[in-house]
Amino acid sequence: MSLEITSEARSHGGRQLVVKHASSATGTDMTFSIFLPPQAGNGGNLPVLWYLSGLTCTHANVTEKGEYRAACAEHGIVFVAPDTSPRGEGVPNAEDYDFGQGAGFYVDATQEPWSQHFRMWTYVTEELPALVAAEFPVDIDRQGITGHSMGGHGALTVSLRNPGRFRSTSAFAPIVAPSQVPWGHKALAGYLGPDEQAWRKHDAVALIEDGARLDELLVDIGTADPFLEKELRPELLERACDAAGIRLALNLREGYDHSYYFISTFMADHIRWHAERL
Amino acid sequence: MSLEITSEARSHGGRQLVVKHASSATGTDMTFSIFLPPQAGNGGNLPVLWYLSGLTCTHANVTEKGEYRAACAEHGIVFVAPDTSPRGEGVPNAEDYDFGQGAGFYVDATQEPWSQHFRMWTYVTEELPALVAAEFPVDIDRQGITGHSMGGHGALTVSLRNPGRFRSTSAFAPIVAPSQVPWGHKALAGYLGPDEQAWRKHDAVALIEDGARLDELLVDIGTADPFLEKELRPELLERACDAAGIRLALNLREGYDHSYYFISTFMADHIRWHAERL
Repeated sequence: MSLEITSEARSHGGRQLVVKHASSATGTDMTFSIFLPPQAGNGGNLPVLWYLSGLTCTHANVTEKGEYRAACAEHGIVFVAPDTSPRGEGVPNAEDYDFGQGAGFYVDATQEPWSQHFRMWTYVTEELPALVAAEFPVDIDRQGITGHSMGGHGALTVSLRNPGRFRSTSAFAPIVAPSQVPWGHKALAGYLGPDEQAWRKHDAVALIEDGARLDELLVDIGTADPFLEKELRPELLERACDAAGIRLALNLREGYDHSYYFISTFMADHIRWHAERL
Repeated sequence: MSLEITSEARSHGGRQLVVKHASSATGTDMTFSIFLPPQAGNGGNLPVLWYLSGLTCTHANVTEKGEYRAACAEHGIVFVAPDTSPRGEGVPNAEDYDFGQGAGFYVDATQEPWSQHFRMWTYVTEELPALVAAEFPVDIDRQGITGHSMGGHGALTVSLRNPGRFRSTSAFAPIVAPSQVPWGHKALAGYLGPDEQAWRKHDAVALIEDGARLDELLVDIGTADPFLEKELRPELLERACDAAGIRLALNLREGYDHSYYFISTFMADHIRWHAERL
């Protein structure tokens, strides 16, 4: 696979790259960012933390606002942030911020006109890890995954369906039960069709109910998050983890909202938590 | 004066506000951001660090990308970032990124059509400090100032011309001698007219040559900054400080560029340095 480094900057002792490549999964060019901490120059392979972004975002939001580089430099962790959907001419879109481009929901769409390009599941679970492992000094036996909102949903479902692949899984304000909330209902129906049975493989709470297991999870959510009660519903995850014996550290953060002001506040905590497990 | 808080978010234990107000200095609405660290709720007044931004920027660039909140929360410092010029309908502009809106250069323009609104010197040295002191819990006896590029020029000249006002002065990749470089030549001629004598009050190196003094300065510049040799010319500041007995800590940072990837890397160092003096 050929990569084009579209930007590169020294930061926090390491290198912040933005990379473009032709994706076979989506049939489009895809862009992701990757931070290589200072330790990447030392010859060995480093643990990698995947960050899946939320609705409307590209790689750029967390890259600019996430405040992850200082902590990744401290702990020697590579940080990779993919886009949230295919984009560009010839890629279908919707008028809505919560469906279509910028809202891939980390599924392989089965419905027209989405099924040709909206294959973010395959992209983030197969193509991108293989590409990063081939081209950068990462130790693929030491992976962690996290994400925000729709990307928190992505992190949870990707980890639950790939047991043993990730040593650590966390999320910021995740959608935990998309089948049961408006954002998820719309996206799963639109990409996967009306059969709700097909949605369960893309619903963290349903996956746990159906037997998927992780040892532990770290989740932070702000109490002033405007989507808390209608879209995020952390109590559903709490109940499912309780019933399944999954250790869930659920931190409700007083007064924090859904923005990168919230994420950046707790990013270093999450990276430290992942580092302890990587 | 009446303030409108246009956005507010909890972050790093404090509050990040964006504030709009009618400015008598510029005759326009002006917007600035202010971070109140967690200690702001304790009843006392806190030291304040002013951050002046560079060409093309608004308050938003450093607010989103500057990574200052963790360090300000640690040290209990209020952080204020004004806009770089007046803006809006009825405000003159130029086609260029380095003149007109987004490029006020922290002067009071004397030339038409700029002189009516482009009064950033008065705004940042008089109106904004008075407003912030009246409306927020800041201790105006404990002020520090910093800035980036054009805003580094602003920080240096504002501090040099207001002896005793700031306990600490630093800059990221500052324009140190605008009279001698293309960006500054264009701006000072455009706003102040062709008489180069008038420029000396807005040129840090000239101010030092003309007798202005500070005890010490902290300056960081990246060696891969594309503007280093043509626009920034730190050797001119070094020579002037040497001759004047000003202690200049000039850190040339290997491989860093002019962007917020550079600024954010060294922001915590600068805030710690200011905190020791505030």
